[in-house]
Amino acid sequence: MTFEYQRVPEFAGGRRLHLNENTRGCSPAVLAAIRGLDATRLAFYPAYASAIRRCADHLGVDRDAIVLTNGLDEGIMAACLVAARDRRIEPESIVIEPAFDMYAACTDAAGGTVVTVAPEADFVFPTAAVLAAITPVTRLVFLTNPNNPTGRIIESETIAHIAHAAPQATIFLDEAYGDFARTSFLPVRHAHPNVLIGRTFAKAHGLAALRVGVVIGAPDRLEALRRAITPYSLNVCAAVALEAALDDPGHVAAYVAEVEQSRRLLYAACDRWRVDYWESAANFVLIRLGDRTAEVVSALARRGIFVRDRSNEPGCAGCVRITAGVVDDTRACIQAMEETLCDAR
Amino acid sequence: MTFEYQRVPEFAGGRRLHLNENTRGCSPAVLAAIRGLDATRLAFYPAYASAIRRCADHLGVDRDAIVLTNGLDEGIMAACLVAARDRRIEPESIVIEPAFDMYAACTDAAGGTVVTVAPEADFVFPTAAVLAAITPVTRLVFLTNPNNPTGRIIESETIAHIAHAAPQATIFLDEAYGDFARTSFLPVRHAHPNVLIGRTFAKAHGLAALRVGVVIGAPDRLEALRRAITPYSLNVCAAVALEAALDDPGHVAAYVAEVEQSRRLLYAACDRWRVDYWESAANFVLIRLGDRTAEVVSALARRGIFVRDRSNEPGCAGCVRITAGVVDDTRACIQAMEETLCDAR
Repeated sequence: MTFEYQRVPEFAGGRRLHLNENTRGCSPAVLAAIRGLDATRLAFYPAYASAIRRCADHLGVDRDAIVLTNGLDEGIMAACLVAARDRRIEPESIVIEPAFDMYAACTDAAGGTVVTVAPEADFVFPTAAVLAAITPVTRLVFLTNPNNPTGRIIESETIAHIAHAAPQATIFLDEAYGDFARTSFLPVRHAHPNVLIGRTFAKAHGLAALRVGVVIGAPDRLEALRRAITPYSLNVCAAVALEAALDDPGHVAAYVAEVEQSRRLLYAACDRWRVDYWESAANFVLIRLGDRTAEVVSALARRGIFVRDRSNEPGCAGCVRITAGVVDDTRACIQAMEETLCDAR
Repeated sequence: MTFEYQRVPEFAGGRRLHLNENTRGCSPAVLAAIRGLDATRLAFYPAYASAIRRCADHLGVDRDAIVLTNGLDEGIMAACLVAARDRRIEPESIVIEPAFDMYAACTDAAGGTVVTVAPEADFVFPTAAVLAAITPVTRLVFLTNPNNPTGRIIESETIAHIAHAAPQATIFLDEAYGDFARTSFLPVRHAHPNVLIGRTFAKAHGLAALRVGVVIGAPDRLEALRRAITPYSLNVCAAVALEAALDDPGHVAAYVAEVEQSRRLLYAACDRWRVDYWESAANFVLIRLGDRTAEVVSALARRGIFVRDRSNEPGCAGCVRITAGVVDDTRACIQAMEETLCDAR
């Protein structure tokens, strides 16, 4: 069995509700920072001290407690590489389905073994099954909070419980969508030194194209991760963009509020259509359209609205994931879905 | 023994002759391309089809024969990860000293074993010793052409000989400085499917801060490498910059000519001072100053001229590596060295 990231086709335009991006765009301050770079800044290897300091301050942690990464993907890949480095064992990564496909893809790329835990009904977090899946060679447990693609939350107590039960493993807690959830494990992380927290600036901060993520954890645990990350993995545009984005918290707050409004609009539409959905703490909503899913996704695409069919994910049969971003996009998507669903009746 | 990239301090300004950058800066076309990106392009995951096509055309190869990487460093790390994936063996990487420190650092990070081959006198390529170092578990042989830090060339026949002698291994041929050497293994690569060629746009093209490299090879061998590289590892600024840089070959040609002039100036100065140096096919010159090296490097730094003391590299005792770039920088460096060397007499 092989695990690979499911690449999506490249779309030239349209309403992009398929990759959970910030569809409003980055802050004008970010644009200004990038446009301020000159020909030699682009030709010289980047310096990071300022961006690291600014990011650590933003997170309220020490500078040696973070590693900036080329998108959070690089943090995931590096964690898998570190886990696979001990050649005396066959290291296992626990992945709770449905999950971001990079956890399995990176584990596999690094030569580790993927141990999947199936979802419970209604995507209730399968705590008992996760605990049962832990073995002496478990080296990674991937948790996503809020989850992608369900948008559901894992309680901090559950994360702590798993971290305690697998002291030989690194708990990679992916908080890529944490800015929308207004919750984080950061405040309690000191009690759990085997937890690494991953954040990204691709989502709420709108820097997906620039590639900038951060892994937060105990400095000694981060040391191994640093060795699996190349010394200039962050490009200079990402470094200056990160500082500019953190200096404009109002841009993020306004977008988070817009996401909340879009989620409510999607919930209300689903209620009208009497289709199932899951209340989401992230910038997307998973909706179960059943056997009309492929038809609806195609009909939307013909109108230039791109959403993600997640039917092939465990527990997600007949489900579509729709980014909740710019309200105008959400309204257009709802309108187009309504027409398609009514046509089908 | 651990292997790590030797990080250099972050310098705010001065004449940067320590990292073999394009000290003239990138093309104005690159600046224009980056400044043309808008807020949503920065917030959307990048598309690569256009940059891949442009790069493949530039290299004269098929599109499926290249992988764009987040700097060539990512290509090196990915090659090491692929080599270490087979857990039934203890994979070895052959590194011919002196060498770019990422080969050993990445091999070590991935759990492989570094097998070093010592340099011969005068940095003659140690063909016999490399062949003798090949074992059944050799999975990588790193070759750098032209070499860093010596600037010396390896003949294509030698590379072919090694590739033939180690069919179980990938020959990672690092041509990072190939644009200055006007020589490449590209034209003969089809006869040697176990050779991967690495190029970077950090040097001659002046894109070091943007992070863009490329690995060229047989499509089936590249498949494994692709799985070790995250799907959005190239940022959008790098993607648009690459196309713009390739559309301005005159900028590169002018810089290559300036590098050649700077090399000649450095050779002439060394001849005057009666110190040893090696004729270089790259944008730097290795000079043996002997026991005055540390003193000269410090004296230059006090005048805001940064060069790289390579004394700790095998075979490089008392050697300094000086970037040959902007002629004005070269003249300033020579002037400062002359004053320091005369003071010391």
